Amino acid sequence: MATLNKEHIEILQKIVGSNYVFFDKESLDNYSSDQTEKLFFQPEVVVKPKTAEEISAIMQLCNKHFIPVTPRGAGTGVSGGALPQLGGVLLSTERMNNIIEIDENNLQVITEPGVITEVLMNAVKEKGLYYPPDPSSKGSCFIGGNIAENSGGPRAVKYGVVKDYVLNLEIVLPTGEIIWTGANVLKNATGYNLTQLIVGSEGTLGIVTKIVLRLIPLPKYDLLMLVPFKNLEQASEAVSTIFKAGFTPSALEFVEIDALKIVSKMLDSHTVPVTDDIAAHLIIETDGNDVDVMMQEMEAIAELMTQYDIGEIFFADDNNQKAELWKLRRRAAEAVKLVGFTIEEDTVVPRALLPKLIKSVKALGEKYNFKAVCYGHAGDGNIHVRINHPTIKNSHGNAEMKSILRELFLLVKSLGGTVSAEHGVGLIQKPYMDIVFDKTTLHLMRSIKKVFDPNNILNAGKIFDVD
Amino acid sequence: MATLNKEHIEILQKIVGSNYVFFDKESLDNYSSDQTEKLFFQPEVVVKPKTAEEISAIMQLCNKHFIPVTPRGAGTGVSGGALPQLGGVLLSTERMNNIIEIDENNLQVITEPGVITEVLMNAVKEKGLYYPPDPSSKGSCFIGGNIAENSGGPRAVKYGVVKDYVLNLEIVLPTGEIIWTGANVLKNATGYNLTQLIVGSEGTLGIVTKIVLRLIPLPKYDLLMLVPFKNLEQASEAVSTIFKAGFTPSALEFVEIDALKIVSKMLDSHTVPVTDDIAAHLIIETDGNDVDVMMQEMEAIAELMTQYDIGEIFFADDNNQKAELWKLRRRAAEAVKLVGFTIEEDTVVPRALLPKLIKSVKALGEKYNFKAVCYGHAGDGNIHVRINHPTIKNSHGNAEMKSILRELFLLVKSLGGTVSAEHGVGLIQKPYMDIVFDKTTLHLMRSIKKVFDPNNILNAGKIFDVD
Repeated sequence: MATLNKEHIEILQKIVGSNYVFFDKESLDNYSSDQTEKLFFQPEVVVKPKTAEEISAIMQLCNKHFIPVTPRGAGTGVSGGALPQLGGVLLSTERMNNIIEIDENNLQVITEPGVITEVLMNAVKEKGLYYPPDPSSKGSCFIGGNIAENSGGPRAVKYGVVKDYVLNLEIVLPTGEIIWTGANVLKNATGYNLTQLIVGSEGTLGIVTKIVLRLIPLPKYDLLMLVPFKNLEQASEAVSTIFKAGFTPSALEFVEIDALKIVSKMLDSHTVPVTDDIAAHLIIETDGNDVDVMMQEMEAIAELMTQYDIGEIFFADDNNQKAELWKLRRRAAEAVKLVGFTIEEDTVVPRALLPKLIKSVKALGEKYNFKAVCYGHAGDGNIHVRINHPTIKNSHGNAEMKSILRELFLLVKSLGGTVSAEHGVGLIQKPYMDIVFDKTTLHLMRSIKKVFDPNNILNAGKIFDVD
Repeated sequence: MATLNKEHIEILQKIVGSNYVFFDKESLDNYSSDQTEKLFFQPEVVVKPKTAEEISAIMQLCNKHFIPVTPRGAGTGVSGGALPQLGGVLLSTERMNNIIEIDENNLQVITEPGVITEVLMNAVKEKGLYYPPDPSSKGSCFIGGNIAENSGGPRAVKYGVVKDYVLNLEIVLPTGEIIWTGANVLKNATGYNLTQLIVGSEGTLGIVTKIVLRLIPLPKYDLLMLVPFKNLEQASEAVSTIFKAGFTPSALEFVEIDALKIVSKMLDSHTVPVTDDIAAHLIIETDGNDVDVMMQEMEAIAELMTQYDIGEIFFADDNNQKAELWKLRRRAAEAVKLVGFTIEEDTVVPRALLPKLIKSVKALGEKYNFKAVCYGHAGDGNIHVRINHPTIKNSHGNAEMKSILRELFLLVKSLGGTVSAEHGVGLIQKPYMDIVFDKTTLHLMRSIKKVFDPNNILNAGKIFDVD
């Protein structure tokens, strides 16, 4: 890998305009970290292109001179995918922030990657349309980053994740060519599915410059309730019970009591009474176009829950209460991180094995003397495990912590799960890829990387090291 | 490419047992064609393995000696994907016909590839579960073939296609290794999505030996109606109108009157009165768990349709009538083929552009003196165009027909569509890949093929030629 010289910088300035090339310390610092614990890697230069053509010129330059390029969305990632750990060019997509077209006739939207996910969701909502994938960071993350990580969020349980909405992508290859991966159609059996290969590839195969998403009609109503469980395992068991009974809620979230206590305190919220006999809550949402039907559904689910040892069910009466409950859920990660639960793992197992996973996480904590708090998208079998170790803070890199995490992921694998559901592998989960993929499979992935990026310049060293 | 010698045959007999290696003329003939017009290519030997390990041994042998291998499901394909046009080994998955496990706790099924799709659908239905993708050939096609082609069918409009249900695949690589592509989880952001790369790759990257599918709760009820339109363009316009009004039917099929006449005659069916003033029908289905809500929805859709010049709407009263309507739709392809509409194209465009597509197909017919009849999954923008040319029969290979089809696909491309929605490229659409993908993109696909199959022995020459 090469470092940049003065001539390279001048060419970059010609390509994007000198106003959009930064190398002052403050700018470099601003792009040196993301939301992944306390990792910090400084790029040599920050470049903010406006068009695919500019990105193409940047990639041609960097590919010719073996200069590392790290693409970055809003920097809200939690696996280190946007960190420039090799220096080189940090390529920010923040100026590519136009929603190009909302096609109401075909229920599609064409957008640039630097649009904030919630801005996009609201823009299509105004037309009566719905783009469901809503990660907790929806108010700040970019849709481009969501594509890179194949993000999920609470609504995935009914509506699927990002990959289920992407029809077609314009990407710039590491070698500079601009291609479209597919077509703007709902069904496609024409050649290899390059679109789905790019989704979730964490910016290692190409830089996404235009995104075509399918949309669905916006459901008119939603209902929300909170069920307090006195027993942790029963709370996770109840998740499967709901699906086995034939219900598909639009969200089914699990929050352990410690997480709720901490986030309630941070937000000074008293919406949910926190009593000592409660172990965890399920947040259950249904949506649809017929309130009576949805109400019946909610009542039937509530009735199902009475087979467990539960407290009083709390129905959200109005939009304010709903917003308050969602705020508590969405800001749980931030809150528990602040009080010391700095290490987050994005575990996922087949849904019915959640009780086993949670029980085993607790046992692991006792064995290695750490506290763990769990919350997440239980309906998908996806639980975020937050770890607070008395001596090992903020460090996926610590050898002792690595050994603990290896044990955790071996357990996840033994339950049929994998190391990341929606956060991606990035730098953080890279050491555990051998647990879930054998050498042959990893070699296939590495070889695909080489096909797209022969000089290994684009987001190199993420997901895996190339030979 | 090499041909088989006596020694190779003996090794194959050792691997799968001599009862499952065939080289008599009748056996070879039986595996020389599929449902793709009148193409005929004889393999040198037909092998029927029972396990992934046997397939692994076969692939190691063939890879070592550069012997072409063509995998085959039920032979119901219509793009020639299972035709052994290079001779060599025809590898039939028909003995791998076990449903391994229906996991009612996690709403998943693990199956071998040689299970008939409808058999699988019925098996999960008995447990109250639903696997929606139901190609017209569901009574005879294999689930493995559906994975290879990323099949669709009428329910794709609400429930998605095969790719939307595949969680994980066991495959045997062309070089003989057996790998799993992912994990049995609903969300996965761990490495490149090899699962989705395999789905729709038409048996060119690996042979699928185990399939993990997600299932959903079975909807309790469905309602069906048939709307006759006096104007062809209005029938296709009405499709978009239904979605724009916020409805998502579980099926929305389009059948041009000529197709309905021909299939009614073949089946001696008088269920749908065919009068001279009708140009096309829409078949509209809704499903759900609340009949009252569904009935309201059907009435609202019927009301929407009155803005067009339509005949009397026909509501299917009972299961017999529903079955009869579906039989007419599902057997349309077979019927029109029998009377001379032998060339079928699997066009797809953004839904709202269907009227333009159908109008242009008719204009093309006038220009080149052929009859065209259209039917298909209008809700997805996917219309099968059947061509009956007075002089060019049964021949995608004919130069004049190729030039006509090129004009058709250029038109499809200009409308934002592509050359296959659910049938695959195989041999038949291969000449038109350059219309929808540029050289760079095709080169990426070819290079991925090389990563998986360095000696180009597995289903070589399908989708594209490798350099």
